[in-house]
Amino acid sequence: MREEPVAIDPEDWVCPLPLRETTRIVAGHGGGGILSEELIENLFLPAFGAPPGSVGPSRDSAVLEVAAGRIAVSTDSYVVAPLFFPGGDIGDLAVNGTINDLAMSGAQPLGLTAGFILEEGLELEVLARVAQSMGKAADAAGVRIVTGDTKVVGKGSADQLFVNTAGVGVIPAGVDIGPERACVGDDIIVSGAIGEHGVAIMSVRAGIDFGTVVTTDSAPLHRLVAAMLAADAPEGTIHALRDPTRGGLVAAVVEIARAAGVGILLDEGAIPVPEAVASACGFLGLDPLQVANEGKLVAFVAPTATEAVLAAMRARPEGAGAAVIGRVVADHPGMAVGRTSFGTTRVIERELGEQLPRIC
Amino acid sequence: MREEPVAIDPEDWVCPLPLRETTRIVAGHGGGGILSEELIENLFLPAFGAPPGSVGPSRDSAVLEVAAGRIAVSTDSYVVAPLFFPGGDIGDLAVNGTINDLAMSGAQPLGLTAGFILEEGLELEVLARVAQSMGKAADAAGVRIVTGDTKVVGKGSADQLFVNTAGVGVIPAGVDIGPERACVGDDIIVSGAIGEHGVAIMSVRAGIDFGTVVTTDSAPLHRLVAAMLAADAPEGTIHALRDPTRGGLVAAVVEIARAAGVGILLDEGAIPVPEAVASACGFLGLDPLQVANEGKLVAFVAPTATEAVLAAMRARPEGAGAAVIGRVVADHPGMAVGRTSFGTTRVIERELGEQLPRIC
Repeated sequence: MREEPVAIDPEDWVCPLPLRETTRIVAGHGGGGILSEELIENLFLPAFGAPPGSVGPSRDSAVLEVAAGRIAVSTDSYVVAPLFFPGGDIGDLAVNGTINDLAMSGAQPLGLTAGFILEEGLELEVLARVAQSMGKAADAAGVRIVTGDTKVVGKGSADQLFVNTAGVGVIPAGVDIGPERACVGDDIIVSGAIGEHGVAIMSVRAGIDFGTVVTTDSAPLHRLVAAMLAADAPEGTIHALRDPTRGGLVAAVVEIARAAGVGILLDEGAIPVPEAVASACGFLGLDPLQVANEGKLVAFVAPTATEAVLAAMRARPEGAGAAVIGRVVADHPGMAVGRTSFGTTRVIERELGEQLPRIC
Repeated sequence: MREEPVAIDPEDWVCPLPLRETTRIVAGHGGGGILSEELIENLFLPAFGAPPGSVGPSRDSAVLEVAAGRIAVSTDSYVVAPLFFPGGDIGDLAVNGTINDLAMSGAQPLGLTAGFILEEGLELEVLARVAQSMGKAADAAGVRIVTGDTKVVGKGSADQLFVNTAGVGVIPAGVDIGPERACVGDDIIVSGAIGEHGVAIMSVRAGIDFGTVVTTDSAPLHRLVAAMLAADAPEGTIHALRDPTRGGLVAAVVEIARAAGVGILLDEGAIPVPEAVASACGFLGLDPLQVANEGKLVAFVAPTATEAVLAAMRARPEGAGAAVIGRVVADHPGMAVGRTSFGTTRVIERELGEQLPRIC
């Protein structure tokens, strides 16, 4: 019996064959050996803005200086599909998202970590674009990516790439922000138009042309929060902050209602929903109030502070569209009710599951 | 034309159908809605030892108190396959691994974050076992899991579950440990037998019976490091620490050699390799010095401190098998050389890629 010669496709090669000329991720890039180090030195460090000539993974952890006080710690994994979408990508989303989670405790970010899970066969060029986007977003936000980790799984065991970012931030003395602090009488302020991120993702995923291109609102909010805290209002009058990501505005306010044991009354007509978002949502059967945002916050503020906080927000680009959209009431604790534009009221409940999977 | 009735398999249901009786992960568990909250309240919080009655995701970040000084920050994603293996699982590995990364800067852990990426269809019971294992490992180490995140991807877009843990630790004043501090003349100490974790994974993956069951050495090392720092030795004589995980002992010492610009001379006969590890490695064609460990450290110590540090290590169970395995030399900077049991020497180089993929 004559055997056929085996044709070897270079893309099927596996370690430990020397694959240093590859344009794709191979298992060895996650092995902690020379390929791992080369990936860090040649791709991640330049993308994250490390000084030229920096050497790879010489430390298992990063060291940061802190003053005595409180730090905020947060983590988020990002699995958004597709990786690139109008106005952003998984990279800047991962940086801004974790900065925003820290900012919602009133914290200013001190450093971020980046953990990658890569699918074997991923184009290095795609990874480089994502890493560069992370570096750019971190730079724009004035935050450093201080340490990272890379794992590689076989083809079919992940969908291209997943990113985890964790962050550490410093909470200024005197700042006391938390969902349980929302009080009856508080005004509820949203920092701008809602629904853009979810619609941006949906439009590329469904391949639907909504007439106007809606781009993600992905943005870091820590400077907006700092401006709000510096507003000419009595200390401690900003009670709660939340970024309405997955689950949208509804999930944000209901979670605070439940944490504080208060009721929420939203004036639906006052909620800024861009025309293009409203029409896309109408078309897709989605509620804009349930659609994810990645550069907006909801603030619960004592009424004595509302005017000053609103003015401080509107003075910044991230808060230019800030509006009061409701208030905290003693009725129906743990629930949110909306006053519709017809003057009727309706209970606003969170989704059981998910409107749009893999939105972030 | 008569249409066949469509048979619906409940496991094919997708959100937003009410799937609260499911025993498996559905997309909605990652949606930030009610199912997400129920997963956190009913599975994660009890597993992580939160007080009963704790309420779900009411905060985007955790708040920790710190004294003025230095903190260490670290991150690691875990993709080990299989999820469960002799002596451990992905859960305790993820907790111990990040504690150890912090400990290698001399830090004592302050809190951990946990980020999950789950494949749709994963048995909730499997997730619960992993989460409980994380809670138990954190409890044993005296560390809290302070915040987390859960994402769900479709079936086939991940392999069951991936975990990211990030951690924050406090570096005691006066402690100055870093790979670049290794000096010519330093003794190199390993805390115990090497190669067990990699062989434990390999044995279940290959289904090979090596006669004796080798179990993972997964263990937290922060208390061992604290004991070493408290040893009766001059301050600042522990120069560098490294946990030899992916890439094994070789990657650990070569990375330090490169960071410090020094040479490494290992006495191969002094390196503790258990009989079962040696025979399994011989069978599989692996070098035990390249096999991953998850509960060992390598220390670079000034010779004046060696005796006291060794004694302090041996007084603790994690360091009972501690041994001097080599020293730092001025020759061949950036390289490691081994003196074999035959009296010859050989260059010890890291793997280009990976011996065993998805080892952690």
